[in-house]
Amino acid sequence: MRKVLVVAQSGGPSAVVNASLAGAVAEARRLGAFGAVYGLVHGVEGALGETLVDLTQVSDATLQELAHTPGAALGSTRRAIVEADFARWRAVFRAHEVGFFAYIGGNGSMWVCQRLAALDPDLRVMGIPKTVDNDLTQTDHTPGYGSAARFLALAVRDTGRDVEAMRSFEDVVLVEALGRNTGWLAAAAALLKDAPDDAPHLVYVPEVPFDEAAFLDDVRRIHARLGIVFVVVAEGVRDAAGVQIGQRGAPTDALGRVVPSLAQGAATILGDLVRERLGLRARVLRPGLIGRALTACVSPTDRREAWAVGAAAVARLAAGEHGQMVTLERTSDAPYAVRLGGVPLLDVAGVEKPLPRAYMDERGTMISEAFRQYARPLIEADTLALGRLDAPLVSRRLMDHDP
Amino acid sequence: MRKVLVVAQSGGPSAVVNASLAGAVAEARRLGAFGAVYGLVHGVEGALGETLVDLTQVSDATLQELAHTPGAALGSTRRAIVEADFARWRAVFRAHEVGFFAYIGGNGSMWVCQRLAALDPDLRVMGIPKTVDNDLTQTDHTPGYGSAARFLALAVRDTGRDVEAMRSFEDVVLVEALGRNTGWLAAAAALLKDAPDDAPHLVYVPEVPFDEAAFLDDVRRIHARLGIVFVVVAEGVRDAAGVQIGQRGAPTDALGRVVPSLAQGAATILGDLVRERLGLRARVLRPGLIGRALTACVSPTDRREAWAVGAAAVARLAAGEHGQMVTLERTSDAPYAVRLGGVPLLDVAGVEKPLPRAYMDERGTMISEAFRQYARPLIEADTLALGRLDAPLVSRRLMDHDP
Repeated sequence: MRKVLVVAQSGGPSAVVNASLAGAVAEARRLGAFGAVYGLVHGVEGALGETLVDLTQVSDATLQELAHTPGAALGSTRRAIVEADFARWRAVFRAHEVGFFAYIGGNGSMWVCQRLAALDPDLRVMGIPKTVDNDLTQTDHTPGYGSAARFLALAVRDTGRDVEAMRSFEDVVLVEALGRNTGWLAAAAALLKDAPDDAPHLVYVPEVPFDEAAFLDDVRRIHARLGIVFVVVAEGVRDAAGVQIGQRGAPTDALGRVVPSLAQGAATILGDLVRERLGLRARVLRPGLIGRALTACVSPTDRREAWAVGAAAVARLAAGEHGQMVTLERTSDAPYAVRLGGVPLLDVAGVEKPLPRAYMDERGTMISEAFRQYARPLIEADTLALGRLDAPLVSRRLMDHDP
Repeated sequence: MRKVLVVAQSGGPSAVVNASLAGAVAEARRLGAFGAVYGLVHGVEGALGETLVDLTQVSDATLQELAHTPGAALGSTRRAIVEADFARWRAVFRAHEVGFFAYIGGNGSMWVCQRLAALDPDLRVMGIPKTVDNDLTQTDHTPGYGSAARFLALAVRDTGRDVEAMRSFEDVVLVEALGRNTGWLAAAAALLKDAPDDAPHLVYVPEVPFDEAAFLDDVRRIHARLGIVFVVVAEGVRDAAGVQIGQRGAPTDALGRVVPSLAQGAATILGDLVRERLGLRARVLRPGLIGRALTACVSPTDRREAWAVGAAAVARLAAGEHGQMVTLERTSDAPYAVRLGGVPLLDVAGVEKPLPRAYMDERGTMISEAFRQYARPLIEADTLALGRLDAPLVSRRLMDHDP
């Protein structure tokens, strides 16, 4: 009897992670190589609770709709896995004659895949990369990133035009970007900046230690010149001692640990600094999860690639390959082109890829040309141009003391 | 000699206010009825400073681009106008042979239009409605609202799917909507809610006094049932005494007045309440100005109507009409249809249109069917459906104490 394929989703959703699920299920049905296709409900929670759904009969129309639906249709999870969980997981898979497992997730999920495969030589596993944070190694980029990056790039460019029009009534606008450990998303905020005075003017990423004095100097200098300062700050930006700025002053629990949900956040803390130290008005925008969910900002490239990595994982399993994470390998920047590849799970499991220092400028407060070249194709930037009014001034006819 | 037409923008920008500008300029050029078309830079600031630009030669290509560009291309303003300003304004207009003035703005701008016309019988004025708040009277709705409403409806629906997938790791999500005095935008957050358990679960508008005990009860009850509570709160929500919730605890100036820029905001205050009183986790999303600027969420209907009211104002001026604000009159709900109209400026100047009580349900925490019928055509909701995974559970094969 042919073995069952199980698919599952883990970690924070993205606007396109359901496209990976749909791609995997569609490919499995097209190949007809598996006894059935099941989904784990809420990832590891579904494994431990033996909560599986049968995806074999899901219609093609539903799969196409799911590819355009945010969230994680199977349910996702952040539950930490303890050693005892693996035995239960293996027992559930054995009871259901599961021979193949495709796990859509980040570097933690890749580690889980690897452990499951090591425990059961009859289980063939494949990792499907997913994270808006873009911090998986061995792949050019990760599905989910392009759409979250596109949201932030559009939000900052468009809101930049808005506050520019209200120059006399706004001083400093701070946008907080997702990214607790890496600056991939914060950096993307500058991808649609076409002129030096366009928003954003300053970008802060966790990989570059935050220098408070330099920040205040820069804000003061830019405000004096332009009348408006647009700042983007990753939620995880850190000072030279490695302390996250956004958790300053947050309440601590009985063990002295910061309670993250009570932290004000990096943009709010920097906004307070601007008000107190420079006497300027500061407005804080914190779109948070909206940025990883908003369907209206999905990058078509991202959605297509998310589907493709899901389908490729299943095709590789059907062809006898396993123990890998599917990757995207860039073959050309212009025109942008990628091909699908695969790397051993051990090479990606638990490893985080920081934003390379060369992707920021020398001072570390603006993206470099190298980053623009890398990331612009991922958000399909070229289709998104705005206009500028370029009209001549009318000569004055009144003296200043008229009428 | 034919008199000059001046166009200007005032108040907070929207994603489509430049479409009104482009529509006005394009129509003026098409008609050829004016000596020139000038723009005031930053509204009243441009009038007082005699800073005008000549729009007569702006290319059609630029006008088309502007129609898709957020912000206010001429520059906008919130500067309060004092009595002495009118004489200066009149003198500047006279010096430049201005005979026609089309002002794009909200109810404050309509009052300014009316005053200018009263001061100078030779000046013919026309108001062009603009506000994301949708609080202008005498018009079915106001250009700018449909796009900001569409952003919020999409953001809440899409983020609702995201947190629903992470049910065990989120308790309460609060989104703050723009709207200091009216709930039109907060209400729009529920326009894409298709099932009773979809986000949002609770909506708070300034027109319904906020009842803290009922809020905490509702959150507790919904959390017990669904495991997740999605709340939308207008920034201007007020308690029974009329005090804005979002300004509680904010620092005051020497005169005891709250400093709005230092207020934490309604969603943050309610989030703190949820944590302290219910012991639940609370996540606050505050997209702020992103919601009125994001081009990716523009409603095509809204952009088309914004262009149309700009063009209609100029056409009416050329035809000898004046002293009006252009309006949108709905002639049919299904299929949605509007025609252009006009009302005396005095009927709209300085008047605010609250969200009718009948647009909320009996308890005042969710929109009514009447509001859905009114507002769904404005965001073009029908083109935006998502999918749902509907797959059968796999029968269990293990006892709970296995393996």
